[in-house]
Amino acid sequence: MQLVKQESEKASWKKEEFESVLYSQKTRYHHLHPFHRRMNEGLLTPTEIRNWAANRFYYQKNIPLKDAAIMSNCPHREVRREWIERIIDHDGRSQEEGGIEAWLQLGQAVGLSRSELLDERHVLPSVRYAVDAYVNFCRNSSWIIAIAASLTELFGPDAIKVRLAALESHYSWIDPAGFEYFRVRLKKAPRDAKYALNLVLQHCKSRDRQEQAVQALEFKCDLLWSQLDAIDRGETRPCVEEK
Amino acid sequence: MQLVKQESEKASWKKEEFESVLYSQKTRYHHLHPFHRRMNEGLLTPTEIRNWAANRFYYQKNIPLKDAAIMSNCPHREVRREWIERIIDHDGRSQEEGGIEAWLQLGQAVGLSRSELLDERHVLPSVRYAVDAYVNFCRNSSWIIAIAASLTELFGPDAIKVRLAALESHYSWIDPAGFEYFRVRLKKAPRDAKYALNLVLQHCKSRDRQEQAVQALEFKCDLLWSQLDAIDRGETRPCVEEK
Repeated sequence: MQLVKQESEKASWKKEEFESVLYSQKTRYHHLHPFHRRMNEGLLTPTEIRNWAANRFYYQKNIPLKDAAIMSNCPHREVRREWIERIIDHDGRSQEEGGIEAWLQLGQAVGLSRSELLDERHVLPSVRYAVDAYVNFCRNSSWIIAIAASLTELFGPDAIKVRLAALESHYSWIDPAGFEYFRVRLKKAPRDAKYALNLVLQHCKSRDRQEQAVQALEFKCDLLWSQLDAIDRGETRPCVEEK
Repeated sequence: MQLVKQESEKASWKKEEFESVLYSQKTRYHHLHPFHRRMNEGLLTPTEIRNWAANRFYYQKNIPLKDAAIMSNCPHREVRREWIERIIDHDGRSQEEGGIEAWLQLGQAVGLSRSELLDERHVLPSVRYAVDAYVNFCRNSSWIIAIAASLTELFGPDAIKVRLAALESHYSWIDPAGFEYFRVRLKKAPRDAKYALNLVLQHCKSRDRQEQAVQALEFKCDLLWSQLDAIDRGETRPCVEEK
């Protein structure tokens, strides 16, 4: 009871303040991870790039599941009508369409077969746990808090611009046709992020709710970071056949 | 261990046999419920019709949530690409579109205001529990078992044909424009049901899985039946203002 009292005594952040606290989480975003820094400096080996593409594909293939989980908890038809577009963007409507397909193209451009991407043979346990944690978070949280977790998209476009330029200039062995995923995200992420940000600003009014939203965004930043930790470390089991 | 052995000893049903066991659940479908029989015979009062429309709306508004829950558990992109159409059919893309909107029109045609449908004031606790049980079942079951639960759609069109004719002939006080929901379902349900049936036949191969699918369909039939039990009984609390 005392806890509840203490919480309700905190004043809500004003819109600009709340927005600024959310943006300040950028310092946790994975563009600062040593692995991404080395990628941007052109220092990754083809094996490291392949390991990254194969593991990150596990994240990509789960995105429509987390967006469907958000929708399944969202009682607002007008929000679902917007959010469903994310699933369509990612799954596409036919064989060659969508973000998942584009990432498969990237994987093939870096030298992975379609089947070794799909069968998850390269997916490291820690990457799997981090991604599954995200999907479960979206299943078990209220829709607006799960949407707050998606706000890493606020930081995505800047990072993608740098990454795309780095991939194109430092990794000439990769067919640039494989970078279509990033080109599409550069167009779509700002629009998606703005819509999600406005929802969070609009629906998280109490200080408690605002703090939950910030925690969700931190959680998501940590989860992306943790994936890169695992990818950076790579396979450490001695008896596993080298991939 | 013995249980597992016993289960695995059962032979799988052949496709035709499995299909026939699924169809045989029609005897549990709510077209046989006393309330629907009285509806079809023209015996319901306007108050009973309104109570039915308002309570059934709680089911309607939850359909996209259960379909999103199914999608959030489904790892097959090609299935998600089909299943997403159900959400679009029900939510629509803009204000006047979709099944939820069509049911709101029906509610208005029987004399309920839009706001009293949306604010759930007429929703009986037992109806709420039954509907919520369905959404939770779809959240917590494997996608194919949740899809098996949706196979009540196999029985829907026949029942809707009879219901629509009965509403049109016996309830002349209802503006027939309100029946658009049923006309659309008559077109879409057979297609939806056929797709779902083929998925279930294709993905439930072991006898255990086949029996789980049948149980899911029984569960769904019971849930629709239980809603009508509650609607038929109506409000029983003496101190609640008459609606």
